Amino acid sequence: MAPIADFHAVIPAGGAGTRLWPLSRAGHPKFLLDLTGAGRTLLQQTWDRLVPVAGASGISVVTGPAHGSAVQNQLPDLSAANLLIEPGPRDSMAAIGLAAALVAHREGPDAILGSFAADHVIDGQSDFETAIRDAVEAARAGHIVTIGMRASSPSTAFGYIRAGDALGAVAGRAVAEFVEKPDAQTAAEYVDSGAYFWNAGMFIFRTGVLLNHLAQLHPRLHAGLSEIAAAWDTSHRDEVLAATWPSLTKIAIDHAIAEPVAARGGVAVVPADFGWDDVGDWAALSDLVPGTTANKILTVGKAGPDPIIEDGAANLVVPGAGRQVVVLGLDDVVVVDTDDAVLITSRERAQEVKGVVDSLRARGSQDLL
Amino acid sequence: MAPIADFHAVIPAGGAGTRLWPLSRAGHPKFLLDLTGAGRTLLQQTWDRLVPVAGASGISVVTGPAHGSAVQNQLPDLSAANLLIEPGPRDSMAAIGLAAALVAHREGPDAILGSFAADHVIDGQSDFETAIRDAVEAARAGHIVTIGMRASSPSTAFGYIRAGDALGAVAGRAVAEFVEKPDAQTAAEYVDSGAYFWNAGMFIFRTGVLLNHLAQLHPRLHAGLSEIAAAWDTSHRDEVLAATWPSLTKIAIDHAIAEPVAARGGVAVVPADFGWDDVGDWAALSDLVPGTTANKILTVGKAGPDPIIEDGAANLVVPGAGRQVVVLGLDDVVVVDTDDAVLITSRERAQEVKGVVDSLRARGSQDLL
Repeated sequence: MAPIADFHAVIPAGGAGTRLWPLSRAGHPKFLLDLTGAGRTLLQQTWDRLVPVAGASGISVVTGPAHGSAVQNQLPDLSAANLLIEPGPRDSMAAIGLAAALVAHREGPDAILGSFAADHVIDGQSDFETAIRDAVEAARAGHIVTIGMRASSPSTAFGYIRAGDALGAVAGRAVAEFVEKPDAQTAAEYVDSGAYFWNAGMFIFRTGVLLNHLAQLHPRLHAGLSEIAAAWDTSHRDEVLAATWPSLTKIAIDHAIAEPVAARGGVAVVPADFGWDDVGDWAALSDLVPGTTANKILTVGKAGPDPIIEDGAANLVVPGAGRQVVVLGLDDVVVVDTDDAVLITSRERAQEVKGVVDSLRARGSQDLL
Repeated sequence: MAPIADFHAVIPAGGAGTRLWPLSRAGHPKFLLDLTGAGRTLLQQTWDRLVPVAGASGISVVTGPAHGSAVQNQLPDLSAANLLIEPGPRDSMAAIGLAAALVAHREGPDAILGSFAADHVIDGQSDFETAIRDAVEAARAGHIVTIGMRASSPSTAFGYIRAGDALGAVAGRAVAEFVEKPDAQTAAEYVDSGAYFWNAGMFIFRTGVLLNHLAQLHPRLHAGLSEIAAAWDTSHRDEVLAATWPSLTKIAIDHAIAEPVAARGGVAVVPADFGWDDVGDWAALSDLVPGTTANKILTVGKAGPDPIIEDGAANLVVPGAGRQVVVLGLDDVVVVDTDDAVLITSRERAQEVKGVVDSLRARGSQDLL
C-alpha cells in the first residue's frame, strides 16, 4: 500500500531512558540502542514502521544537538530538512509543536501529523498500520486522536485512557479522560471494565487543529513555535531559535493539549491490538528479549564470552563490556555490565534504577550519566 | 621474645584458591592477594606472624615456578636459599617433606619444623605464639603436633580433630582421629562434646621424626625427597629435581602422615584460641572484612568510585576493576568485579564457585582461570 496522503510523522527523540542505566546514557540514550537484539535500534525500528504510512520524506525527527549526527547516521534516508535539532529540551509540547508548526507552514493546516516515541517497541506492523489509518480518518474529522492499546494485563507501569461514546462517522471513541498510572487494584478494575486502554502516548491530528488548540490554551507557546517555523527554512533559523526557544513553556503534550481538550470532548481514541511496550525498565525489557529459556541474555555492544548462568531462573544478563559474566544460584536478578559501570538489581526493583542515576548525579559522577 | 631455638617454619604456597574466583586466579592466587584490607597479602601476613617465632632466616616458602618472583617481591627478607621452587605441584606431602628433608640435611634431625598455609587468616598473635611454643615442646617430645582450634561455631566448612588423653609431660592431648567436614547436626554434636577441634592444617614436628614416619609409610617418597635435599645446595639441584620430582607420590600430608600416625598414637593436638579462618569462599571472606555496616565492601586492585548499595543488607561487593558497581534492592549477594570477569552469586552458594571455575576450564577459557 502507498503511504497515507497528507500524512506526516514526527519522532521526538529525547530522554535518556535513565531506568535503563547503565546501558542507556545521556551520550547514547535508549533510542539509539538495539535493545531487542533485532539488529536495528529502537529509533531505526520506529522509522521502519512509519515509512509504509508516512513515506521516508514525510518523517521528521526532533532531537538535541548531542544526538543529531547519531540520528543522521542511523537514518540515512531522513531528509536533512526534517532533522529538527532543538537547542535544548523543552518537553514534548515544544518538540511536537515545532514539528506541527513546520508541517503546517510547509504543507498547510490540513496536513495530518502523527507523533511516535523513538524508544518504544511495537509488534504487529499490519495492525499498527490499520490503527494509524483509522486514526488519520478521525483526525481529518477534527479530533486530536490517540491510539489506545487494549490492555493485555493490569499493568501499573502505564497511564490509561477511559473511552466514552463511539464517534459514529469514523472508527474510534471519544476520550472521557486520561488517568495516571494506577495501583494494582485500580488497574485490575480498569481492565475488567473494558472501558480503559493503555495510553501509548501516540497522537495524530490535523496540524491546524492542534495549533488552534495551542493558540487558545498556550498562546505564547503557540506564538513562539509559529515564529520559529516561519524562520526554519530561511537564513534566520538559528537567530530566531536562539532568541525564542529557551523561553518556550516546558510542558508535556499530555498536560498542554490532550487532557484539557479531552475535557471539552475534542480527543478521540482508536483502539488497537498490536503489541506495544514503552520498555520502561529492565524488567519490561527482559519480557521483550527473544528466547524461550528461563534466563534471558541480551548482548549489546562488545561481544564477549557467553554469560554463565548456573542454577537460576528468570535472570536477565546484559553483557556489554566483553567480559565473562557469571551468575550462580540466583533468581530474578538483572545484571547489566558496561565498560565503566555494572548494575545488579532485581526485576522487582527495576523501576528504582532512576533513583540510582539521581544519586550519581547528586554525587557529581557526570561521566557515568 | 627471641625466636624459638631450632625452630623453622615452612609456608607451602600453592593452590589457586578457586572458590575466590574471579579475584583469585592461577596467575595471582589467593595467597598473593590482600584479601582483608590489611595492607599486606595473606602470604605477607603469614610471614609476619612467623618471624617472631622462627626468625626471618628460619622461614622457607615452597611455591611453583610461576610464583617464585612474586613471592620474592612480597617477601624481601626471605633468604634465596629458603625459596623452594617445586617444578610442579605434587601435593602437600612432597612440599612439606622437601622442606623437612632440607632442614634435616642442613640442621640435623632434631631441628623442629612447622608448616603453615600461606592463605589463612589468623587473629591474635600472642595466642598464636603461645600455641606454637607449646606445640614445639610436644614436637621435641617426639609427637607429630597439630594445632586444634577451639570451635567458635559448628562449622561444616572445616575438618575436625577428635582429641584423646592429655599428654602429661607437655601441653596438649593425643589425637584420637581426624574427621572430614561433617554435616550440620554432626558438627553441632562435635562442638557440644568439647572433644573436637577445628583442623587448621598446621603441623609441627622434629624433622627426623617426620622423615622416619615417611620412610616407613611412603619409602619411595622418602627416598626421593632425601635425594633432592642432599643435592639442593649443590650444582646438581636442577638435574636431580628434574629426574626425581615428577615421580614423587602425589598425596596430602593429612593422608600420608597425620591420619596413619594418629591411628598408632603418634599425633598430638595443642588446643588454641586465636582467631583462624581458611577463607574458603566469599562468604567466609565477607565475615573477615572489617566494617560495622550491614554491607561489606572489599577493594582489591584498581581503586574506583565507591560502590553504591541501595536498600540491601549483608551484601559483599568487591570492586576490582575501577568501575562503578551498583547493587539495588538485593540482600546476601556477592559481587566480584574484575577486569575480565564479574561474578554475581549469594553468600549461601559461595562454595559452588569452584564448579564455575571447573566449567570455565572445561570450556577452554584458560585466560579466565
